[in-house]
Amino acid sequence: MSNLLENYKDINDIKTMSLEQQRRLALEIRRFLIDKVSKTGGHLSSNLGVVELTLSIFKVFNLNKDKLVWDVGHQAYVHKILTGRKDKFDTLRQFGGISGFPKRSESIYDFFETGHSSTSISAALGMARARDLRNENYDVVAVIGDGALTGGMALEALNDVGYRKTKLIIILNDNQMSIGKNVGGVSRYLSKLRMDPKYNKLKKEVENALKKIPNIGNGMARYLDKLKKGIKQMIVPGMFFEDMGIKYLGPIDGHDMKNLTEVLSKAKDIKGPVIIHVITKKGKGYQFAENNPGKFHGIGPFHCDSGELCFTSCDSYSKAFGEEMVELASKNKNIVAVTAAMRDGTGLKMFSERFPDRFFDVGIAEQHAVTLSAGMAKEGLKPVFAVYSTFLQRAYDQILHDVCIQKLPIIIAIDRAGIVGDDGETHQGVFDLSYLTHMPNMTVMSPKNIPELRYMLKWAINQNCPIALRYPRGGDNCSILMEPLKDFKFGIWERIYDKGDIALIAQGKMVQHAMAVREKLLASGVEIRVINACFIKPIDKELIKDLVDKDVKIVTIEDNMVHGGLGTSVLEYVNILNKKIKVLNLGFKDEFIPHGKTDILYKLYELDVDGIIKNILKIV
Amino acid sequence: MSNLLENYKDINDIKTMSLEQQRRLALEIRRFLIDKVSKTGGHLSSNLGVVELTLSIFKVFNLNKDKLVWDVGHQAYVHKILTGRKDKFDTLRQFGGISGFPKRSESIYDFFETGHSSTSISAALGMARARDLRNENYDVVAVIGDGALTGGMALEALNDVGYRKTKLIIILNDNQMSIGKNVGGVSRYLSKLRMDPKYNKLKKEVENALKKIPNIGNGMARYLDKLKKGIKQMIVPGMFFEDMGIKYLGPIDGHDMKNLTEVLSKAKDIKGPVIIHVITKKGKGYQFAENNPGKFHGIGPFHCDSGELCFTSCDSYSKAFGEEMVELASKNKNIVAVTAAMRDGTGLKMFSERFPDRFFDVGIAEQHAVTLSAGMAKEGLKPVFAVYSTFLQRAYDQILHDVCIQKLPIIIAIDRAGIVGDDGETHQGVFDLSYLTHMPNMTVMSPKNIPELRYMLKWAINQNCPIALRYPRGGDNCSILMEPLKDFKFGIWERIYDKGDIALIAQGKMVQHAMAVREKLLASGVEIRVINACFIKPIDKELIKDLVDKDVKIVTIEDNMVHGGLGTSVLEYVNILNKKIKVLNLGFKDEFIPHGKTDILYKLYELDVDGIIKNILKIV
Repeated sequence: MSNLLENYKDINDIKTMSLEQQRRLALEIRRFLIDKVSKTGGHLSSNLGVVELTLSIFKVFNLNKDKLVWDVGHQAYVHKILTGRKDKFDTLRQFGGISGFPKRSESIYDFFETGHSSTSISAALGMARARDLRNENYDVVAVIGDGALTGGMALEALNDVGYRKTKLIIILNDNQMSIGKNVGGVSRYLSKLRMDPKYNKLKKEVENALKKIPNIGNGMARYLDKLKKGIKQMIVPGMFFEDMGIKYLGPIDGHDMKNLTEVLSKAKDIKGPVIIHVITKKGKGYQFAENNPGKFHGIGPFHCDSGELCFTSCDSYSKAFGEEMVELASKNKNIVAVTAAMRDGTGLKMFSERFPDRFFDVGIAEQHAVTLSAGMAKEGLKPVFAVYSTFLQRAYDQILHDVCIQKLPIIIAIDRAGIVGDDGETHQGVFDLSYLTHMPNMTVMSPKNIPELRYMLKWAINQNCPIALRYPRGGDNCSILMEPLKDFKFGIWERIYDKGDIALIAQGKMVQHAMAVREKLLASGVEIRVINACFIKPIDKELIKDLVDKDVKIVTIEDNMVHGGLGTSVLEYVNILNKKIKVLNLGFKDEFIPHGKTDILYKLYELDVDGIIKNILKIV
Repeated sequence: MSNLLENYKDINDIKTMSLEQQRRLALEIRRFLIDKVSKTGGHLSSNLGVVELTLSIFKVFNLNKDKLVWDVGHQAYVHKILTGRKDKFDTLRQFGGISGFPKRSESIYDFFETGHSSTSISAALGMARARDLRNENYDVVAVIGDGALTGGMALEALNDVGYRKTKLIIILNDNQMSIGKNVGGVSRYLSKLRMDPKYNKLKKEVENALKKIPNIGNGMARYLDKLKKGIKQMIVPGMFFEDMGIKYLGPIDGHDMKNLTEVLSKAKDIKGPVIIHVITKKGKGYQFAENNPGKFHGIGPFHCDSGELCFTSCDSYSKAFGEEMVELASKNKNIVAVTAAMRDGTGLKMFSERFPDRFFDVGIAEQHAVTLSAGMAKEGLKPVFAVYSTFLQRAYDQILHDVCIQKLPIIIAIDRAGIVGDDGETHQGVFDLSYLTHMPNMTVMSPKNIPELRYMLKWAINQNCPIALRYPRGGDNCSILMEPLKDFKFGIWERIYDKGDIALIAQGKMVQHAMAVREKLLASGVEIRVINACFIKPIDKELIKDLVDKDVKIVTIEDNMVHGGLGTSVLEYVNILNKKIKVLNLGFKDEFIPHGKTDILYKLYELDVDGIIKNILKIV
């Protein structure tokens, strides 16, 4: 049997394949995916789920003119395999290698870059409208998951799609999951559709029956006519979409390429917007992933035969956060946890099981999550919204407008802050210190190590103002033992070492880097100060003034953009003090940070030990 | 006839009123509103629309225990009148007076502060869940407009509302408008509901007819049974909401207090979430406002008898923007305009009439607007998204993630940047320079006067990167004539006056303040430099270096938070230059700016001429 994948050259190859060949290719792609991702790590479940869908799209559409937008984008591996990147899969998500998301720099077939959820319909609609205004002729296809459909901007887009009759093909990839199981009214609605796949059959039967009803009189005829119309409407599934002005096709089996090809071809001929409801199975074809799609959603290297991870994960900030939440909640019944479809990732699984009534997964809906928390806080609860830094960006306005103005005491537990590594530029959490510190009434904190996160959370729960705690992905890797701070006073920093002409003011994990810097410099006879800026806002003005009074040079180190964060705040205050003190601000410069292991990235941006020392030496 | 409003004491009074008295009170309130708002200016149309609705809510609910959240909040005037603030209406929106929005500091009956659209369901749901977890017993009511319902976060909230059976009363105040006419699929759906008010009558008739159909056999009976069930579902209006798990009541006439009171009372008894669809008329009872609700949405002082404005508005930035858009678009067919329900406010009315095919009002949906623009730009259009600064906050993530990463050439025309005055803290546009300048690939500009905006827009249209142009509400009030810059080079500032030991680096309208400062100081023999920082990002490093080399003291002035904006960028660069130069950053300090005339606020924050001079003198 020839190896179809090995011989696959370009997007035209699929056009001439028989259905049988397509099926073999699908098998080979699955094997390829499992093999490659088991080595590099990556998003497995969602890609296994869209093998047939991707092949069918490539079969029906001509991507040399048609455009395709993958919502979220982590399910575009098959797309990458089919568009000339098959041989680069050993470099997937590695520094300098191919990204785990669509990237226009990688391929002309990556039409729009994605990473965050729910953007595809907006982007595709924009492209379709551009096509029409420029009198061009091609199809635009957006593929969006049912989880992403609950994100507010996807609904904003649907509202707009239905308004003008722009031709647009939306494929709803319904696997009943985002990362975890989907929740909410939209999900309920979709499952209703899924459970009624025989609607069309029913429709025919009912219509036949209606024909048999004898005519009872004129009045009756009128009613029956109304009835027929009503029934017709009633038995068209997807009335929600149809009511919005979007033609609905489906639901159809997303692993049946014959059917998929037919429906996609039909959709091409429909004028105006159409939504195709496709049912797929996350993890399809790999037993371990089918059984546990959450585990294989975004996974590290694993053993193909057993599905076991190659490296057992050590203690992480998320785990400590989750454990402490359970601990605190068992003593304080006002504590509730909120997540936007990230229960497991944020460490809230145990909490959700222990306190199901106090756990709120709102779906992919960060805006709502924040204002819901604000409402809860207003009436006496103590909500903790756990969220990744990059996704919290969606709720910028809600934090500012619904939380900070009223100074409502919610806690935002910001996981994956700083660089996250393999997921790359769409997922780096390097903006939060900049966007949170210019919000009045906001307090921003950051623990220097995992144990400190627990104490910080405990302390924050007892305050009466909005507090953001931000901490990095993964765990600590510092060989230097540091006692956690156990109690906190507003805006008071920790002086870990308080001797020397230079002070490193660092936040979060950067304190660990600062300590290593200190050790290395100490070995060459230079003693420096290390300060744990556990509060990013407010800053410790008294401490800074003390340093300035003593003519100590200041170096700030943060896992964030250098503009607008901790370093800026320190610099601004030193400037007000009106004395010439050298301040050196280290952090990420003004560009998007690519994917790659965090160690490589720290080195690249001179935030590793050597990089920091190199910069310090410039000011000595 | 006694004056009911004059004698109205507290929220209990309405409980004992007869329907007839309520109707008289409604009339008196309308007269009161028209009289007061004609003097202070404010939101008239929406308040005239909810007189009966508010009275009915106060009749049915007990706000000493029940909670009420007004979405957007500018329609809470009647609520304010009924909760002890009747006598303060002469101070409405004036500095130190009552706010045009709910404020917890004003009244215990203002349960949650609003200002931006679409937040009420989230907040109310949070409050309702807190009630349940704390075993308390009261009703929570959210009142949301049909316009606000298209905002993504409202849909996120609806999705969550339907998920758990939390008891919550949502009143959909459907006036078919936000500020202008509503658009989109949701609006289409609602108008379907509105146009079928006889559904229930039909339902009965059809059911009667069905009973008369003779039994044709067993198979037929089965079909008929299905039919009946189907019909029942079909003729329940609001199936969209019901499918989401939310009970739907309505549509009902929002000016019929008898009916309203009955339905609200019924809703109180429903377990779980309920949505009451209420049809109201914006501007109700004041002919001029009924005929032109948009004009009277947010209006300045006007003559009651004629409906004419007391002051004719002079040239404004919005007007110039709109005119220039038409001018540019007539020459470049790739230019399209996007707005989020703010056509008139942003000055795009003329554009929408001249180029209806190239004008896109997406509803209250800033997130979608930005990513839609990104998609359009990707395929060769030149989209200009016109939006108020404060509302653009909703699209923080989309600008960063969907526009900046791909460096897509959209233009964001940010109107109402800086302080906006009467609308107060929820509407001040004082964060944009801080949140835009830390986004890689973003260019941020600001014109010093109205003519310059035109040239800037023209220039920006021809660049190939994302550009934000930000400009203030209203017009110029500078007596000092300044020639607009007509051509721009990336990151190059304008040296307006280039002699003296102090340089004022100002942006936007603050350049006008700087010029006045210069004149005043010149009169006392001190000559200073004035620099127009037309680019907030990138800053003009060469110019700054030149100033630093010449030991010129630097004062930055911006209509924005002082942290993270222009001043910070200048300070950061001066710091890197490593020379002791005094930098003084002027802008808004770290707090929310209250409502009041801009002149008063500038004075309060020392950004008026005297305030700036006072600060300059400190560093001389």
